[in-house]
Amino acid sequence: MPLPRRGRGDDLILTNSSPMLMTGKEYLESIRDGRALYVGKERIEDQTTHPAFADGARTYAALFDMKSDPALRDLMTFEEDGERCSMYYLQPRSQQDLRRRNRAHRKIADFCFGLMGRTPDAFAGNLTGLSMKPEVFDSEPVGNRNNLLAIYRHVRRNDLFATYAIVPPQGARNKDYYLAKGLPQPALRVTAEDDRGVTLNGMKMLASGAAYAHEVLIGNVMPLAPDQLKESITCVIPLNLPGLMLWSREPFNRAGMRAFDRPLTTRFDESDCMLVFKDVKVPWEKVIVHDNPGLSRDIYIKTAAHVIANHQSNVRFGSKLRFMLAVASLVTRFTGARDIPAVRDMLGRFAAMEAGYNAMIDGQIEACQPFDNGFMVFNRRYLYAAIHWAMENHSGLIDIMRELMGGGQFQFPASIDVLDDPDLRTLFETFWTAGEFAAADRMKLFKLAWDLIGSDHASRATSYEKFFVGPAFAVRNYNFINAPWDELHVAVEQFMGTYGTTQGSVR
Amino acid sequence: MPLPRRGRGDDLILTNSSPMLMTGKEYLESIRDGRALYVGKERIEDQTTHPAFADGARTYAALFDMKSDPALRDLMTFEEDGERCSMYYLQPRSQQDLRRRNRAHRKIADFCFGLMGRTPDAFAGNLTGLSMKPEVFDSEPVGNRNNLLAIYRHVRRNDLFATYAIVPPQGARNKDYYLAKGLPQPALRVTAEDDRGVTLNGMKMLASGAAYAHEVLIGNVMPLAPDQLKESITCVIPLNLPGLMLWSREPFNRAGMRAFDRPLTTRFDESDCMLVFKDVKVPWEKVIVHDNPGLSRDIYIKTAAHVIANHQSNVRFGSKLRFMLAVASLVTRFTGARDIPAVRDMLGRFAAMEAGYNAMIDGQIEACQPFDNGFMVFNRRYLYAAIHWAMENHSGLIDIMRELMGGGQFQFPASIDVLDDPDLRTLFETFWTAGEFAAADRMKLFKLAWDLIGSDHASRATSYEKFFVGPAFAVRNYNFINAPWDELHVAVEQFMGTYGTTQGSVR
Amino acid sequence: MPLPRRGRGDDLILTNSSPMLMTGKEYLESIRDGRALYVGKERIEDQTTHPAFADGARTYAALFDMKSDPALRDLMTFEEDGERCSMYYLQPRSQQDLRRRNRAHRKIADFCFGLMGRTPDAFAGNLTGLSMKPEVFDSEPVGNRNNLLAIYRHVRRNDLFATYAIVPPQGARNKDYYLAKGLPQPALRVTAEDDRGVTLNGMKMLASGAAYAHEVLIGNVMPLAPDQLKESITCVIPLNLPGLMLWSREPFNRAGMRAFDRPLTTRFDESDCMLVFKDVKVPWEKVIVHDNPGLSRDIYIKTAAHVIANHQSNVRFGSKLRFMLAVASLVTRFTGARDIPAVRDMLGRFAAMEAGYNAMIDGQIEACQPFDNGFMVFNRRYLYAAIHWAMENHSGLIDIMRELMGGGQFQFPASIDVLDDPDLRTLFETFWTAGEFAAADRMKLFKLAWDLIGSDHASRATSYEKFFVGPAFAVRNYNFINAPWDELHVAVEQFMGTYGTTQGSVR
Amino acid sequence: MPLPRRGRGDDLILTNSSPMLMTGKEYLESIRDGRALYVGKERIEDQTTHPAFADGARTYAALFDMKSDPALRDLMTFEEDGERCSMYYLQPRSQQDLRRRNRAHRKIADFCFGLMGRTPDAFAGNLTGLSMKPEVFDSEPVGNRNNLLAIYRHVRRNDLFATYAIVPPQGARNKDYYLAKGLPQPALRVTAEDDRGVTLNGMKMLASGAAYAHEVLIGNVMPLAPDQLKESITCVIPLNLPGLMLWSREPFNRAGMRAFDRPLTTRFDESDCMLVFKDVKVPWEKVIVHDNPGLSRDIYIKTAAHVIANHQSNVRFGSKLRFMLAVASLVTRFTGARDIPAVRDMLGRFAAMEAGYNAMIDGQIEACQPFDNGFMVFNRRYLYAAIHWAMENHSGLIDIMRELMGGGQFQFPASIDVLDDPDLRTLFETFWTAGEFAAADRMKLFKLAWDLIGSDHASRATSYEKFFVGPAFAVRNYNFINAPWDELHVAVEQFMGTYGTTQGSVR
Repeated sequence: MPLPRRGRGDDLILTNSSPMLMTGKEYLESIRDGRALYVGKERIEDQTTHPAFADGARTYAALFDMKSDPALRDLMTFEEDGERCSMYYLQPRSQQDLRRRNRAHRKIADFCFGLMGRTPDAFAGNLTGLSMKPEVFDSEPVGNRNNLLAIYRHVRRNDLFATYAIVPPQGARNKDYYLAKGLPQPALRVTAEDDRGVTLNGMKMLASGAAYAHEVLIGNVMPLAPDQLKESITCVIPLNLPGLMLWSREPFNRAGMRAFDRPLTTRFDESDCMLVFKDVKVPWEKVIVHDNPGLSRDIYIKTAAHVIANHQSNVRFGSKLRFMLAVASLVTRFTGARDIPAVRDMLGRFAAMEAGYNAMIDGQIEACQPFDNGFMVFNRRYLYAAIHWAMENHSGLIDIMRELMGGGQFQFPASIDVLDDPDLRTLFETFWTAGEFAAADRMKLFKLAWDLIGSDHASRATSYEKFFVGPAFAVRNYNFINAPWDELHVAVEQFMGTYGTTQGSVR
Repeated sequence: MPLPRRGRGDDLILTNSSPMLMTGKEYLESIRDGRALYVGKERIEDQTTHPAFADGARTYAALFDMKSDPALRDLMTFEEDGERCSMYYLQPRSQQDLRRRNRAHRKIADFCFGLMGRTPDAFAGNLTGLSMKPEVFDSEPVGNRNNLLAIYRHVRRNDLFATYAIVPPQGARNKDYYLAKGLPQPALRVTAEDDRGVTLNGMKMLASGAAYAHEVLIGNVMPLAPDQLKESITCVIPLNLPGLMLWSREPFNRAGMRAFDRPLTTRFDESDCMLVFKDVKVPWEKVIVHDNPGLSRDIYIKTAAHVIANHQSNVRFGSKLRFMLAVASLVTRFTGARDIPAVRDMLGRFAAMEAGYNAMIDGQIEACQPFDNGFMVFNRRYLYAAIHWAMENHSGLIDIMRELMGGGQFQFPASIDVLDDPDLRTLFETFWTAGEFAAADRMKLFKLAWDLIGSDHASRATSYEKFFVGPAFAVRNYNFINAPWDELHVAVEQFMGTYGTTQGSVR
Repeated sequence: MPLPRRGRGDDLILTNSSPMLMTGKEYLESIRDGRALYVGKERIEDQTTHPAFADGARTYAALFDMKSDPALRDLMTFEEDGERCSMYYLQPRSQQDLRRRNRAHRKIADFCFGLMGRTPDAFAGNLTGLSMKPEVFDSEPVGNRNNLLAIYRHVRRNDLFATYAIVPPQGARNKDYYLAKGLPQPALRVTAEDDRGVTLNGMKMLASGAAYAHEVLIGNVMPLAPDQLKESITCVIPLNLPGLMLWSREPFNRAGMRAFDRPLTTRFDESDCMLVFKDVKVPWEKVIVHDNPGLSRDIYIKTAAHVIANHQSNVRFGSKLRFMLAVASLVTRFTGARDIPAVRDMLGRFAAMEAGYNAMIDGQIEACQPFDNGFMVFNRRYLYAAIHWAMENHSGLIDIMRELMGGGQFQFPASIDVLDDPDLRTLFETFWTAGEFAAADRMKLFKLAWDLIGSDHASRATSYEKFFVGPAFAVRNYNFINAPWDELHVAVEQFMGTYGTTQGSVR
Repeated sequence: MPLPRRGRGDDLILTNSSPMLMTGKEYLESIRDGRALYVGKERIEDQTTHPAFADGARTYAALFDMKSDPALRDLMTFEEDGERCSMYYLQPRSQQDLRRRNRAHRKIADFCFGLMGRTPDAFAGNLTGLSMKPEVFDSEPVGNRNNLLAIYRHVRRNDLFATYAIVPPQGARNKDYYLAKGLPQPALRVTAEDDRGVTLNGMKMLASGAAYAHEVLIGNVMPLAPDQLKESITCVIPLNLPGLMLWSREPFNRAGMRAFDRPLTTRFDESDCMLVFKDVKVPWEKVIVHDNPGLSRDIYIKTAAHVIANHQSNVRFGSKLRFMLAVASLVTRFTGARDIPAVRDMLGRFAAMEAGYNAMIDGQIEACQPFDNGFMVFNRRYLYAAIHWAMENHSGLIDIMRELMGGGQFQFPASIDVLDDPDLRTLFETFWTAGEFAAADRMKLFKLAWDLIGSDHASRATSYEKFFVGPAFAVRNYNFINAPWDELHVAVEQFMGTYGTTQGSVR
């Protein structure tokens, strides 16, 4: 079977005529596409073999294999119009469809314990949500509804993994500075247009997963000023377009790092890339918003994109919480502290928080809401509440884990390579064994736990959970604007209407 | 129509042969039953007219009226075996039945803004839950399964309002002290038995709603020692049994208190009574546990009692949260601070917490669990998580309201009676009006808000939300014992099994 | 000995020529001065005998007696210019003087367990602080430096108790509304001026202690707009000036309330009054700021007023913390829970917080700072830090007390009058005794604790601790503007200057 | 000048006869003493040149240079008995002496921004504190008072840097397991004794700074059982004793790490070592506790060791807080967010917390307490309160920094080596500059901030601040046992004695 062939620049559309789910092997082949990926000044020729990315690539490949496993066919895929597609492209029309999406997200999230935010189902939720209300794009002069739907079908049909970059660089806030100095603006913008499409220059932040994805949506999640016409460009493009550079942040996996020492970093570092554009040509078919600052921001909220996509992020965080709870519990078993009432109390509290959070996800299905065009969406208020909960509580839960671990993680040798030296090994096994728990097993668990709370990878996650939907004020604003204030106020006002200033008692 | 007749002592069963829902008027008649209710040394002859209780009684009567309103028939009642019963006696057999219970609870909770914990549907949940697994009582020598089912049918058929008292007095912890001194033990116990039944002496804490209820379950929510045979007595009895005294805690409503000044205290003070027994005779038919300390505690957990009853408490707290959020929002509207970003942020956070909590309730329905005997119950882990959430967060939310109110509540005259004096009224309306918000309206809202956060009634609620299910360690223990530890551990252990001590990288 | 005579209106200066410390009896006489004090529509003729105020008045009288007790002469007073004065009027010139003020504040605070915020030493700190930099008032056209110093000498010489009211009414924020409607502005302002002085109309909030004090400072703690010339009036006047009305908020003490039931409310309700002015004439000698909006606000910060006065508030809160800690500990002794590790842990945490807070107060002395004119002041940053700490932590500590009390406070009869009835008394003593702790003693302690955390009086205090220095953002702003940002930044910048972009390692 | 010569095994005492302060160069020479330091299986021959330790060694050397700088003579040293000694060996006899210790600690702490816990003044405080009450050691059969004083003089005279290891390995808790299996116990113990001294075998945790120190105290901070005679051994020994191995935890500094990328890790990784003993001979002169489990634990509390030593840890944390506050502020200046009210509010809060903590340290001097033998110590309650504060608040403050940084740290290239490539450099400087803040400067600050909150080094510190004095329950216990409960209780009881059960009002 011929692999999906992906061209460069002038050949953006996958050409296989018989759509099917990608296997892991096909996936790995498909991302060796010549993209310009940089780690500092080093150009990475093949991210599937480079030490900083190879393990991550294998994790994504395993996800593709899982998804195409016939045994999981009903869980991970659906059939429509004769095509079998990944479940995360399902447009939900019922409560049951929402459950199906939920189950598929959970399977993926559980595979990586919720430690990767940008699995293929993440942006897929956004794109599917956009497709559920394409008329939003009709306000565009060029009728981009069709482009949007074509992109949705293209990505779904070819089982692609797309991601997004929707934040301007820091320097974009200082527009006047650049104008005054006659310098180019750092924020990505359209610098030329012709019959075939637009030319882009500038930078976009921060494409998580871009080292591993096929395509990327470029857009704006933060409001633009009305005069930022050229920055409003929103399009979905392959990551190997000529002129597009991926500048990776410092990778956390590196040559020589052992799985034993960093079991999570080695597998689950999804990468984050800044995207630098130098005269990148994008054909009109890939453009969904242009010269329309208001729409550029609104598409996520006015369509079902935000609500469908963030259910995935909710589910992912729920998997992570379960993993954290499990590790916390195992650590206390290994330290022998699990039966101390105060420790049991902390675990009970942790379990309560985990269950409470996951209840909020199930509540989104029970209280699902009709959407336009006959579709159904998750309960919005519950969704934003769950995002808020995660943002507010994750650091504290990590801190509980820190408390439960004590200084344990610093009480192991610098490397498990002590096993290579017979004398050191004997000492290690004599002094580090703790009752029934063998020295190497204890070290293995503490290394895992440290990689969950203390490594660079862990710390990046702690920041990520605070910010991936936006800063705290934005998350609280989502909750504010979705609250039914009038209904709430009326209930109080009606009650206050039942008594006046004079009664000695009620009624 | 003859009122349900309720006898004293030797005539415990209601005798109306055609069961029907009680109206408010019938309810008020029915609780004037001669019970021995004390406020300090004062014996209250008629709680439906005494200033400390009359307003509360009217609130309960209004609930009965609402329940028997034909317009709410489908929401508030169900029909079974030709009888129409209050919905809160429904034994749920499906997810839909759980939704029906949920909706009825919510209607009642919304009526009193969740400010009364012991509405008739509260203990009804316990009793219904007990009836869903009556075989638990078969371990009793005298086959109390039948007693339990008869009590369930009796209460449901006669539309009664029952409550419970299941905590020993403080002194019970010092058993040795009383033995050494030859003093009677304060904890309630069986002091004699004969063919007709048992004789009870001692005290039980703390029957909320007892001033207003028809019957009360006496039992033990805290574990007993194996030798506390006689304290294990569990029975459901009328509150007017000879020898039974109700000692009320200080009532918060009192003569001369205006609805304007204390709109919540005057309506929603549900009362708490200590129950003092002096040679109270209880017939065997009313006994469900006897001489069985283990069972006495276990019945709530081994049956569906705890899970069914606490869904009501979850729903009630959800209504309260909505009310708190509404009042918080209105206060900021009246102070003009609502549009300040920091205030809006606080309201957004409050709204997120309210939505998150109510999501946990809906999640209990989505993730409902099969129970024995073909019944269905709410998701237990989510239920205990919600209890834990409320216990941990209520005080903090009250504190946010305090913050939003500023010192506003202290900046009003001592009484709205200033309106009676024309000169004072003019000054009041001149100086206390704030823009579009009239002086008396502002005062009315701040008085309401104070009664929600600052009055004795409010403070009692703040303690209540912390303790009504038990102290924090008990609530955390419920969460601990219901967590699926093995399943959680296995997932981590399987992952750790995929790598050893030697690999340079994963796989 | 003739009592200090205090006149009305045209006779504002006390006339006794031989200054001396007031006794409690003299104090009580002195406040029966005809002031127009209202509780709702009721005019209070004599606050030293009215049930709502008599107990409070006696507490203040006891403070005066303590202060004039020869045994406490060195602790509570100092001598200057041949006059013996209350210590809280001492202008500190050394670290030792600061300690002397600290000790006197603490003696007063301990007397009322920090439960009264507006003891005579509170505003005395403000006035003394103003007097330490009188040149600030020279910017006034009429040379108010002399007025200020004369007021300071007058109050100190006559041992007066003064308070303050420095917040506009809520309606003041809606100025445009009143202008548009042609209504009088509610905010206090100068409505006329002549050779003798100014005429005032409008309202000021919120004079705590005004029912008991002799005089009151009228001013503005919140910034005024430059055009609010007439609202900038700042003066110190007797509370019995003709045309001045005191509108009390709802008093918490009332007829029939027993000390047993509300031991703190009955003694320590300091009162809060709104001040309503109707054509009140104030002579120029009493005016310290006029037609100067900027200065009106600045005097507290540019002089030593804020820092000297708030050390008293720090000390007061420290006394309260000790009291709270003591009650928390006693409650656990009475419930028998004190030896449970989790409870001991909570008490240890509480003790750590109490000690930490009081350490912040002592730190203000160790790190005291020179001020202008040869004076010395407490460390400002530490002072604002302590205010911030109290504001942030008080509610949480009350919540810990709530947790330690459990539902205990609701498990006592409505009134201790059960002791009057022999039968009830026997039951009470049988069932409510808990081991070695007698029924009435237990009830007494729980009533005290409730009055500290749950009564209206307690709730008012919980709001007060959050707001008496200003809202959270203002307190944080004090901390922001006093932080040595430049010094802090330079240290980091110097460090960053020691390494560049190229080194493989440091240095 | 001959360097202090340090022998191995049978030559434990430094032999230079003219004591003087060590320079950095001398220090570096002195620690190249043949100690058996391991990183995994690798034996580190020279920690002053090995990439994992060389930078740290230079930092310590710089501290020695600073200390011997004549310009800082009065601040950093004192003279006694004709010897000039490091200030941290001063036995304080007055409040002023406590201030001198405080200032010297602060100078050292500020040098490393409080990021190293085990600077030479840390254990010096312990040892000095032990020497202030040597009679505690008289309870030892062999009169170890003299040993202790000789050790104190030896370390002080030779200006040595000593550290400590006082925690048993995890396995020590499972004693029965080892007995049952016939395995050697992992906990360090005396396995033989003879005329010259004791022989030690087993392991001790966790000697921070041991890679860099000269000597180490071996002891027990956790209570021993009465039968743990042989584990009670307490002695102070050189780190190069034959048979003693130092097993380092994973070092955070490593070859190729740039100061630019990890400016704190590279300089301030103080190391932590597990100490493994194989037949280590310790002469009697170095033993201070033997065969005395009770004393082994008590010496820290019964002498001034704990209070003197922990003042240093307080001061160190105070320096760190200032550094954190400075970095937090600079980050917001660089992001342009510093003037947003919500950000300013967070900084104000942070500043309040920093000031409050440092106030607690100054309070320990103001409220210093006399100790035995004419000495003076810091206020104990305030000291433990400060420890508790740091333990409770550090993680939260790190989280505030995380919040202020946003995702900024992930929006920079993987390495500053992009400057080496002209094209990349141009792009970097174009797109990463933000207004007046140059690209490399921004990256430098964010790298520093990340190394303070997110790197392995940072995470280790976050655990360290939680645990270095002991787990939370132990810290709370110190606060519990030092609280003046009787005094606190009496004040409440006296108050309650002023009113009975019958008064209508107080007095």
